[in-house]
Amino acid sequence: MKYNIKDIKLSAQGYKNLTWAEREMPVLAALEKAFTKSQPLKGIRIAACLHITKETGVLLRLLKSAGAVVAACGSNPLSTQDDIAASLAKDGISIFASKGMTDKEYYENLLSTLAIKPNVLIDDGADLIHTVHTKKQDLLKSIIGAMEETTTGVIRLKAMAREGRLQFPVIAVNDSQTKHLFDNHYGTAQSTIDGILRATNIMLAGKTVVVAGFGNCGSGLAHALAGLGSQVIVTEVDAVKALRATMDGFRVLPMSLAAKVGDIFITVTGNKDVITWEHMQSMKDGAIVCNSGHFNVEIAVGALEKHSKKITIRNNLAEHTFPNGKSIFLLAEGRLVNLASAEGHPSAVMDMSFANQALGVLYLLENQKKLSKTVHVLPKEVDEKIARIKLKSMNIAFDTLTPEQQKYLSSWNEGT
Amino acid sequence: MKYNIKDIKLSAQGYKNLTWAEREMPVLAALEKAFTKSQPLKGIRIAACLHITKETGVLLRLLKSAGAVVAACGSNPLSTQDDIAASLAKDGISIFASKGMTDKEYYENLLSTLAIKPNVLIDDGADLIHTVHTKKQDLLKSIIGAMEETTTGVIRLKAMAREGRLQFPVIAVNDSQTKHLFDNHYGTAQSTIDGILRATNIMLAGKTVVVAGFGNCGSGLAHALAGLGSQVIVTEVDAVKALRATMDGFRVLPMSLAAKVGDIFITVTGNKDVITWEHMQSMKDGAIVCNSGHFNVEIAVGALEKHSKKITIRNNLAEHTFPNGKSIFLLAEGRLVNLASAEGHPSAVMDMSFANQALGVLYLLENQKKLSKTVHVLPKEVDEKIARIKLKSMNIAFDTLTPEQQKYLSSWNEGT
Amino acid sequence: MKYNIKDIKLSAQGYKNLTWAEREMPVLAALEKAFTKSQPLKGIRIAACLHITKETGVLLRLLKSAGAVVAACGSNPLSTQDDIAASLAKDGISIFASKGMTDKEYYENLLSTLAIKPNVLIDDGADLIHTVHTKKQDLLKSIIGAMEETTTGVIRLKAMAREGRLQFPVIAVNDSQTKHLFDNHYGTAQSTIDGILRATNIMLAGKTVVVAGFGNCGSGLAHALAGLGSQVIVTEVDAVKALRATMDGFRVLPMSLAAKVGDIFITVTGNKDVITWEHMQSMKDGAIVCNSGHFNVEIAVGALEKHSKKITIRNNLAEHTFPNGKSIFLLAEGRLVNLASAEGHPSAVMDMSFANQALGVLYLLENQKKLSKTVHVLPKEVDEKIARIKLKSMNIAFDTLTPEQQKYLSSWNEGT
Amino acid sequence: MKYNIKDIKLSAQGYKNLTWAEREMPVLAALEKAFTKSQPLKGIRIAACLHITKETGVLLRLLKSAGAVVAACGSNPLSTQDDIAASLAKDGISIFASKGMTDKEYYENLLSTLAIKPNVLIDDGADLIHTVHTKKQDLLKSIIGAMEETTTGVIRLKAMAREGRLQFPVIAVNDSQTKHLFDNHYGTAQSTIDGILRATNIMLAGKTVVVAGFGNCGSGLAHALAGLGSQVIVTEVDAVKALRATMDGFRVLPMSLAAKVGDIFITVTGNKDVITWEHMQSMKDGAIVCNSGHFNVEIAVGALEKHSKKITIRNNLAEHTFPNGKSIFLLAEGRLVNLASAEGHPSAVMDMSFANQALGVLYLLENQKKLSKTVHVLPKEVDEKIARIKLKSMNIAFDTLTPEQQKYLSSWNEGT
Repeated sequence: MKYNIKDIKLSAQGYKNLTWAEREMPVLAALEKAFTKSQPLKGIRIAACLHITKETGVLLRLLKSAGAVVAACGSNPLSTQDDIAASLAKDGISIFASKGMTDKEYYENLLSTLAIKPNVLIDDGADLIHTVHTKKQDLLKSIIGAMEETTTGVIRLKAMAREGRLQFPVIAVNDSQTKHLFDNHYGTAQSTIDGILRATNIMLAGKTVVVAGFGNCGSGLAHALAGLGSQVIVTEVDAVKALRATMDGFRVLPMSLAAKVGDIFITVTGNKDVITWEHMQSMKDGAIVCNSGHFNVEIAVGALEKHSKKITIRNNLAEHTFPNGKSIFLLAEGRLVNLASAEGHPSAVMDMSFANQALGVLYLLENQKKLSKTVHVLPKEVDEKIARIKLKSMNIAFDTLTPEQQKYLSSWNEGT
Repeated sequence: MKYNIKDIKLSAQGYKNLTWAEREMPVLAALEKAFTKSQPLKGIRIAACLHITKETGVLLRLLKSAGAVVAACGSNPLSTQDDIAASLAKDGISIFASKGMTDKEYYENLLSTLAIKPNVLIDDGADLIHTVHTKKQDLLKSIIGAMEETTTGVIRLKAMAREGRLQFPVIAVNDSQTKHLFDNHYGTAQSTIDGILRATNIMLAGKTVVVAGFGNCGSGLAHALAGLGSQVIVTEVDAVKALRATMDGFRVLPMSLAAKVGDIFITVTGNKDVITWEHMQSMKDGAIVCNSGHFNVEIAVGALEKHSKKITIRNNLAEHTFPNGKSIFLLAEGRLVNLASAEGHPSAVMDMSFANQALGVLYLLENQKKLSKTVHVLPKEVDEKIARIKLKSMNIAFDTLTPEQQKYLSSWNEGT
Repeated sequence: MKYNIKDIKLSAQGYKNLTWAEREMPVLAALEKAFTKSQPLKGIRIAACLHITKETGVLLRLLKSAGAVVAACGSNPLSTQDDIAASLAKDGISIFASKGMTDKEYYENLLSTLAIKPNVLIDDGADLIHTVHTKKQDLLKSIIGAMEETTTGVIRLKAMAREGRLQFPVIAVNDSQTKHLFDNHYGTAQSTIDGILRATNIMLAGKTVVVAGFGNCGSGLAHALAGLGSQVIVTEVDAVKALRATMDGFRVLPMSLAAKVGDIFITVTGNKDVITWEHMQSMKDGAIVCNSGHFNVEIAVGALEKHSKKITIRNNLAEHTFPNGKSIFLLAEGRLVNLASAEGHPSAVMDMSFANQALGVLYLLENQKKLSKTVHVLPKEVDEKIARIKLKSMNIAFDTLTPEQQKYLSSWNEGT
Repeated sequence: MKYNIKDIKLSAQGYKNLTWAEREMPVLAALEKAFTKSQPLKGIRIAACLHITKETGVLLRLLKSAGAVVAACGSNPLSTQDDIAASLAKDGISIFASKGMTDKEYYENLLSTLAIKPNVLIDDGADLIHTVHTKKQDLLKSIIGAMEETTTGVIRLKAMAREGRLQFPVIAVNDSQTKHLFDNHYGTAQSTIDGILRATNIMLAGKTVVVAGFGNCGSGLAHALAGLGSQVIVTEVDAVKALRATMDGFRVLPMSLAAKVGDIFITVTGNKDVITWEHMQSMKDGAIVCNSGHFNVEIAVGALEKHSKKITIRNNLAEHTFPNGKSIFLLAEGRLVNLASAEGHPSAVMDMSFANQALGVLYLLENQKKLSKTVHVLPKEVDEKIARIKLKSMNIAFDTLTPEQQKYLSSWNEGT
């Protein structure tokens, strides 16, 4: 079996959407042009676990154009765009993903993807890397290394490395500036809002919105919501971030207090049990709860389902009624609302994240002998290169240091 | 024939969406509770021409609960939510609307709605009022008056009144503070952005967005876009509004110059030919063009279609390629992008607009002998009442003037 | 005595400041050029009661250039810029104002100004108009009419008119769009923040700031503070404005609750007793309280002084310690903090307000026979003219309606 | 000579201002309480080169309370608050600083400060450290290490370390999160705007403001200006920062183009020749130019003075007229406008910066044997401690990780 998707007949629509995405992805386009000629991935087998969207589609096509053999599974049960999966499958990429797949199918797809005996893994949440370390250790010998896309995955992999369990080098693509300062910050903001609107069509102006987490994701989201007229409350566990949120003009509260006043709750922490069953009990009737963090553990969905009666209002919008008659509304089953209920981050910002993926694979191959079995960050030159291509594509010129200025910055004799 | 809709089987989903909308419409809920008891519209026949959405659905059900006989048609070929139409039809409201109806069907539906021989018209764009004045003058004698929802319709009706052509009093619901300061300002902002995102999934941060018009709609939209990281350029024909946009931090340019630098263009002027074929010719390859003004005349769609090859990328997103190879992308055929590609304004804000409609109908009936055949605004007390119910539903307390303060404000003896 | 000022030797510095202000006042410059030639005020005697600042100075010089005989007193005990007063006096304008004048001197100066037996009054708060109606009725016969600058004054004059007490027409300059949408909104915002910073150097980011009033002044101020990172709470007595503040993302609370959580309090209501002694008792130790409304009655300064021990920390910053040891800090004795502690509204925005004053005087003279003894607003053409000159001076071009567009806007036949 | 200041009689006012600042500096207050008791700096001689303001005054008093012998000079010719210098001198701290001192006096004061034969240096711009390395090498043997406050100084010291010239360890206080994410970002924003307003009283809304540099300082400043209604243009030399500015909604231009359209220019780069004589020649008549970077080399002041005629309009505002009649206005002679024309960063934010200084001195003493002769950053625990004290003083509670959450974050087994 070369693929396991919803319906190959969706490929025509998928092709159109891929072409549409490409217009907004000039960095990947520039790399594709170069790699098609130079074939830097000739013969390399890549297994990817990614949200199968039009943007990852453009990346997967690029990797194939560069000479690689590519297989991919979806990194979340609800995030697959079935038309894209169909178009990629038709193009000869082995895709194992469909929207709404069960957890069981999710793991079967993971294994199907690994069947190509990969040299390189591209991961989003570290499930693929975890699988080869725990269930498919026979694959380890042919693996040169891996790429990880998310904050959540990087935290997980650093824990593995700390315990000496990581068996190959991993590039933390997330930690590139051109990734986390853009994708996490601006991408999460827009796509999360988009997901909430498609699920609910709720008015954001005038609403009290609780954003759990004020890292790169949460800070971008909080500002975007404020820009749309929401009154934003931030919860945090880190004192410096809590203080930063305060200085940006947001109210900071512990979740136990925020729970009582919020109209809408969004988790973006990378942690678990951020909204507990106790919190939900103290919420107002009609509160809307959703998650835009990587895993569906941020909200205590299990407890909610156990203690309430569920009615599906429409796609991704479920009413949970408590015995006392109060309802709260859960979006997308507590999974990534931006991918389940909208289309994930816009192409323009994924362009940079995936340029880091593509250049990261090359970096891994070129430096495989030097890289230790731990988590690595791409060198600053990669950020610089990506940002320069991006700015050029947007027709934005900026200044260059003169030789005198460069000298001044590296000297220490000029003072007052 | 009691209704003309897409599919009555959609009524179950429509019912759920109506119930969902009601949660966000506490002012209408309060009125419904009162009117169901007092039956103030007993025996009154109301013909409405509105976007058939979950929000107007709640209004139409309220009018029926208040004792009225209600018929309604859609006020735009692309704005009907077919499941809502089905649910309303099932509830005994005569609905004549379906998404994608032709212009011919549009006008047939108008006439079907008028078949109830209405006493009151509720209009959105003044097409219904225009029709009874030009094609169905026999209905005039039974009409007490009408309500008009939009800026565009009010402009049109004032022109009729100026020429002495208006045959009954019209309440400019649009001109209530609790309508245009909220619906037009916050509602248009969010729903327009929502429509653009659903059609394109484009990244707004970093984009240059040209907003044509800086009235209540345009100013709200410009600020919301800025809050999402867009660089906003405003075009205007009114000097005071152009200056206000400048002082709010926006670049103001004539459209001829803005056309050359914009990535996305949105018209919200109420005028026609705001984006001409000449403007489109000077746009960048890949520019996205859409309209959130009432009628589809703001963009020169006819000229565009004549001079370009059209490919539909996906719903509401069409690529128009010029002979020279450049493409521009038109959303929702130049019709209201917020209604065609999203769900229109959120319920919370339409709650207030439609409370003005409901209270306006009562005001019209109570004052029918006093009201001249011209355009009227509801008294300030209606605004005050609606705002108070809304604030209370949001659990927001505010201050009350003390007798001493009231006296101070009406005295003139206290100075420095 | 031709003037009563602090020190004529300050005139050189005053002249420099006036010249600096003129650079930012292109509308007045354009009028001065025209009026110097046409002498439209030849022989007219004008008595003005204004904050004597570099901006009013430019207006007074313009009136003189236009042929008028001009006398002016300060409209607030703390707002006079003594160097400006000196320069104007040296130029032959009769100025009666000095910073820190007592209330007794304030009223003496008012009378000195009226000694020229004016034909036109220019007022700021309506004290001058009030005086001629109550103490100097003999002057009424030579007065053609008056101009009023502030919201507060207009409220006072409308009360007079309602009671049939107003003896001549008054132009509510405040109600021109090019005045209240700019001066009140943007001017108050910046100058109030400026005044607070000069008095306290307090960090605004991270502070909870309570803005009392969400009219043109308060809404501008609330947004500017949010832009600087403050968490803004709004108090209001008007339901529509309270709702607007909510939709703009601000918390709305009654003052009794806001008093407990605010770090900084600013009143801009035009009313009295907005912050009472009871409110001050519930404030946090260290709270900062100030006023940017016209009169010093918004804060219960009398009660505060009675119940606390006062220490002046530095100019415009006084610590009031309560018997229980708690302190609150009052700025500028509760008088207009923007004028007492900073320089009032910036020149660029006063340019438009004072262009309304100058054009208003002409309008009054030209229409004196037609104008009833009530409060009038300048015609929309004046706004349009001022905005156009201003935009041109800023080198900002904007669109013009085509004949087809004009026709469309005045027709009613084009529908869907 | 124990001090060299303007006038010891200013000490009473200085004392009041110091007391006022202390209210906003709860972290330093907490440290002072602890250190007064524990005397951790007993017998340590500290030489500081700092802007002598009320905030550094509170730090210097704390160091003395902790047992140190303290001498200090001003780190900029225009930044000294003479009343503070007087109060500190009266308290027994050797102060060598006065506002308006010449460059010669500046360096004499540096040497006077070093006369105490310091064990620890506290520097702001690295002039003190530079002096002991180049002119007073005999002092090196008694120096344990130094603290550096600014981005500029850290760049300079890293260059020294790179060349192997640094003779003792330096703590880059600037690089603490609780310093550069707050002081540089929020502090610079507010104090720079404050300095511009006090110098010019110019309207910021509607103005085109060019911010050179989008690091921690420039990004905070750009957002604050946008919040006040300015249209902000950013110039950068770093591609990632240029892209971030774009995504935040700002126009990015090279200075050669920005020079032609800006109304106000502010440099915050840490580099030299950011605004050259060529740029000034292409500016509009009336452009305002100022600097908020550490040294007065960002603007080509020398060339400007050579090619123009200078008139001082008022304090810190000079008109420079070119031979062709055009003028540009330079603020504060191109020196730090926030310190020369206002009072520097507000106390609340300096509280955290100076807590890093105080805790940094302790860290240096405790770790003197371990620290290499290079540039060091304080451990994350110091940031955490400072942020926690600050939040507590603001009465802001936030969440704590549960044991389960801590375990989750350090585990890698939980996936999808």
